Amino acid sequence: MTSIDEANQTAVRRMLDSAPVLTGIRRASDVIPGMRPDLILHAGPPIEWARMSGPLRGAIIGGLIYEGLASDEASATAMVERGEVAFEPCHDHQAVGPMAGVTTASMPVYIVENRAGGTTAFSNLNEGYGKVLRYGAYGEDVLARVRWLSDVYAPIVGEALERSGGLDMKSLIAQQLQMGDEGHNRNKAGSALMARLLAPHLARTQARGDDLAAVLDYLAANDLAVLNPVMAACKSMADAAHGVPGSSLVTCMARNGTDFGIRVSGLGARWFVAPAQIPVGLFFPGYTQEDANPDIGDSTITETAGIGAFAMAAAPAIVQFIGGTPAMATESTLEMYEITVAENAAFGIPQLGFRGTPTGIDIRKVVRTGITPRVNTGIAHRRAGIGQVGAGLVRPPMECFERALEALAAAVAAPPQ
Amino acid sequence: MTSIDEANQTAVRRMLDSAPVLTGIRRASDVIPGMRPDLILHAGPPIEWARMSGPLRGAIIGGLIYEGLASDEASATAMVERGEVAFEPCHDHQAVGPMAGVTTASMPVYIVENRAGGTTAFSNLNEGYGKVLRYGAYGEDVLARVRWLSDVYAPIVGEALERSGGLDMKSLIAQQLQMGDEGHNRNKAGSALMARLLAPHLARTQARGDDLAAVLDYLAANDLAVLNPVMAACKSMADAAHGVPGSSLVTCMARNGTDFGIRVSGLGARWFVAPAQIPVGLFFPGYTQEDANPDIGDSTITETAGIGAFAMAAAPAIVQFIGGTPAMATESTLEMYEITVAENAAFGIPQLGFRGTPTGIDIRKVVRTGITPRVNTGIAHRRAGIGQVGAGLVRPPMECFERALEALAAAVAAPPQ
Repeated sequence: MTSIDEANQTAVRRMLDSAPVLTGIRRASDVIPGMRPDLILHAGPPIEWARMSGPLRGAIIGGLIYEGLASDEASATAMVERGEVAFEPCHDHQAVGPMAGVTTASMPVYIVENRAGGTTAFSNLNEGYGKVLRYGAYGEDVLARVRWLSDVYAPIVGEALERSGGLDMKSLIAQQLQMGDEGHNRNKAGSALMARLLAPHLARTQARGDDLAAVLDYLAANDLAVLNPVMAACKSMADAAHGVPGSSLVTCMARNGTDFGIRVSGLGARWFVAPAQIPVGLFFPGYTQEDANPDIGDSTITETAGIGAFAMAAAPAIVQFIGGTPAMATESTLEMYEITVAENAAFGIPQLGFRGTPTGIDIRKVVRTGITPRVNTGIAHRRAGIGQVGAGLVRPPMECFERALEALAAAVAAPPQ
Repeated sequence: MTSIDEANQTAVRRMLDSAPVLTGIRRASDVIPGMRPDLILHAGPPIEWARMSGPLRGAIIGGLIYEGLASDEASATAMVERGEVAFEPCHDHQAVGPMAGVTTASMPVYIVENRAGGTTAFSNLNEGYGKVLRYGAYGEDVLARVRWLSDVYAPIVGEALERSGGLDMKSLIAQQLQMGDEGHNRNKAGSALMARLLAPHLARTQARGDDLAAVLDYLAANDLAVLNPVMAACKSMADAAHGVPGSSLVTCMARNGTDFGIRVSGLGARWFVAPAQIPVGLFFPGYTQEDANPDIGDSTITETAGIGAFAMAAAPAIVQFIGGTPAMATESTLEMYEITVAENAAFGIPQLGFRGTPTGIDIRKVVRTGITPRVNTGIAHRRAGIGQVGAGLVRPPMECFERALEALAAAVAAPPQ
């Protein structure tokens, strides 16, 4: 076993031993380190406005209107172009967000504490389907939903989470993988489990009857409700594995709609980026592959932690909305064992005789085998203001892994500082 | 195609076209035809007290105490032995009940209306786990739970169901089969779906806050909550297929803990019975195969309608509590195509490329192939008063099918009356 292998075992053990618990919901500026009113967090690696794709720009415009900093698209764009808004990755602030991932100072965020790993992670709230901010839509109906999440949902569900003592996300993910979810594009079982676990605590809050019913309506209708807590749980697991000197494990994969970026445990905060690819999948009526934006979102944190496309064997029904066949779902998981260093016994896949999910991507294995990680994803329209147009499959560019491996080789060769 | 084949296609079409909807909860004596205070309904074919097994006797004792007709085991037994209590199968009253299936006049029952087939079916309420009436336990703690279901749960959930306009059980079953349930021994996804669908309607009832929270606690903790509505849905489907002259389709399979009985679409109300077998499976700590009662319960209505063990390919995780391997779960479903006449396209199994569940057992195919239907089941202790000791697999005795086939041959040969 080389020193890199040993470092990887240390890193992946921290990921596997993680105990993520969803403990509450708070205002981003109250809990996210470094959050401030003129800062907008976004998915993926760092990017300046000029290079941002339509859906990310759309979500930023919506975020500025939501914050009351701009009144419409024109004033939001002008504000950005005057340099009055700063942009940083969610990942630089212990946070993750699906698709555009836009998180502003007054938005509520889920808090996930990794009680074994000592890490804490955050995620914004899931808006549901259709025209939504995270896919770059920002109309008044879109913002009304974001405001309801902030004003009604967040305080009630936050109080319920505190009353519950926290929701054990490791157990929830383990259960959903036995119930046809892979935890990224399919979260129906996990969302139903979250709804029924929270419901009695919700009923014990101080919520008004109609607000309580509206929150339960949301939880009853939104099969993605649990995605954001699952992502924060995965972020807390991946962060626990980060920072092990010499480790070649991937601890972050994220896309901003223009670039795909990864981080590696032994290589600090440095991003290794390359152009994001365009997902291939199934499109909603009226849309085609031509409408698809390049890959976007922090939701690849699920694959980074060994679920999502890595657990697709557990979710054969997913092929109904991302394309492919149930046999391909099984092959997807089997292939990922080729590029990972461990199996997560806590996340057993019934279809594979309860074999643990492939966990801990080793950049050396990716480069050696030529197999890049598989990713399940939603597909955004390439223009701002439209929203989701489909769902499908994508892979990261190999260049990210090649560049990271070069950097690791240099770091390992260099004398300790 | 013979006239029997044609009759079977008519019968199975009615089963497949069924549209079961869970519409409410009412007192048994208010809705079940023929229900009266001195009548106790039980699972399986008819049986007299002298031949009843321990768990059925235990549940009957509990039912008489619950009704206030007896004060303890001795007075209940004496009452029965004086001939003051009548016993009839649930199935003779459009009803089904898991395990002992004991249903008394003042117990609440779920109502399922088959809006396509014109049938209505009933089922008692699920008590959850541990020492429960349906497994033959009848202590004060057991009866306290039955009373809570009757006094608190039934009115609140009944009101919520009425407010909801009814729960589409066909859609719910279709979803749970894509989420790792087979609808008989594994109902975790279905119960979670029921909880989250009902929750907003529950919040809109007139329930007191602590009662609402207690109902939501029950729904959050009971992975079998939906079993009884699923059984009633299956009963409404099977009854729709019953009564087609010349049809050799099984429309009822049920066990009373002593005998296994079946009914056939073209053979009216007649039962074909033979001694029930003893299930083989996994036992709770402290119990062994020696403790197992012979097969008991109406829950085989699920297999009769094409789910349960017939859909086990959809539920590989079930092997954790009934024994076997995920591969065996797939084989179970594949084998059942050999003895059925249709596939239910509404109930697609993702693991089999969304192939519909094997539906409509043909007694001719059973006798010709020597393959009896597979059944997943809970296992009761053989003595009254104890409860569940495990879960496993069982098959009906072949004699039931042979006798029914002889009767069908005679009926087909006989001139029309």
